[in-house]
Amino acid sequence: MTHLLHLDASGRGDSFSRRLGETFVAGWRATHPDGVYTYRDLVADPVPPVDEDRVDLATRSSAHGVRDIETMDQVAAGAPGTARSWANTRPLVEQLLAADVLLLGVPMYNFTVPAAFKAWIDHVTLPWLPLKGKSAVVLSARGGAYGPGAPRERFDFQEPYLRAYFSALGLDDVSFVHTELTHAAVMPFLARFRDRHETSHAAALDAVRDLAARVRAGTPS
Amino acid sequence: MTHLLHLDASGRGDSFSRRLGETFVAGWRATHPDGVYTYRDLVADPVPPVDEDRVDLATRSSAHGVRDIETMDQVAAGAPGTARSWANTRPLVEQLLAADVLLLGVPMYNFTVPAAFKAWIDHVTLPWLPLKGKSAVVLSARGGAYGPGAPRERFDFQEPYLRAYFSALGLDDVSFVHTELTHAAVMPFLARFRDRHETSHAAALDAVRDLAARVRAGTPS
Repeated sequence: MTHLLHLDASGRGDSFSRRLGETFVAGWRATHPDGVYTYRDLVADPVPPVDEDRVDLATRSSAHGVRDIETMDQVAAGAPGTARSWANTRPLVEQLLAADVLLLGVPMYNFTVPAAFKAWIDHVTLPWLPLKGKSAVVLSARGGAYGPGAPRERFDFQEPYLRAYFSALGLDDVSFVHTELTHAAVMPFLARFRDRHETSHAAALDAVRDLAARVRAGTPS
Repeated sequence: MTHLLHLDASGRGDSFSRRLGETFVAGWRATHPDGVYTYRDLVADPVPPVDEDRVDLATRSSAHGVRDIETMDQVAAGAPGTARSWANTRPLVEQLLAADVLLLGVPMYNFTVPAAFKAWIDHVTLPWLPLKGKSAVVLSARGGAYGPGAPRERFDFQEPYLRAYFSALGLDDVSFVHTELTHAAVMPFLARFRDRHETSHAAALDAVRDLAARVRAGTPS
């Protein structure tokens, strides 16, 4: 029984990345009628920021060579602050470890991931997290164009960053779907890019439907 | 009279980036006895996350071709949500525009800036912000080594990201000071790197003292 963890990080309720997510989930449910679906909206329901105890938790984890959740329980219990911090982090780590497929609604804000998504990364990441064998689908929306050859290509710190971050945890099977030029949908002075935006969004919806039907844990997609 | 805006984003109270900041500020005060100093701790006193109204504010700003704070006042007043959002953002924008020099205590968390700092970026950034003519000093601490030739060099999404972000707003005079290998200070299995860490921190403190004495608005430093 496959398990899908879906996170959203757009500040907008009806955003392009959220619409791509709805399309993916509808397709995935049709293909996986028995699948388990878990959702968290990182904007409506944000994760706590990193504090002294969370830094200590990561330090203790590394210093004690932690490799699994049970050892983390023991090591975190060594001090009241790290015990409290781990009590906050553990449910998110369990949720992440239980998932086969991560569906991540992550628009580009200021050339990289939104603070709401980075807060999840900073909260959940411990160097021993075994993400190898999972796959991830990143649903992205971008105000401009950042693809190969675009004038702003070198300003893309969203896809290259997420690829590097996940690869450091052993997760290399990451697919990206981008709806680009979203600013053209709302800004009159960018009206000349509206066709390109609509083409990009239609292609993203197609890609998402295709991925929803064939994505599985650890399968190149 | 020069104006220094100092932001801290480390989750730790006594962190390397905060110590670099204290050293900078002591030196800067000695060189600028009449200077104005403004400080915000983005962990103890976080900025609000991006919501629907904040997205609308950015969209209206671009759609109306806003170029200054007074026009932004008028455009934001066009809807109750954007008026509320701008009331939150305006003081931070004013604080930023008033500064000649930005002093940014920004450790590397998970290969890029902490969520607390990204939240400030997402909150304060409007495409018209005139940062040209200012200078910035980024005080960074990193668990490992990410400099030229390091095995993890390509995982550095902190310095290249901040350079790109500020350059998009016209600010190219950005100096970076890194204390590296901070994990070696606390993790026994990294003890062999302790000397390199201490050398890195000592060099960073020297660099910070030097910068504090000579940094000024828009001067290559």
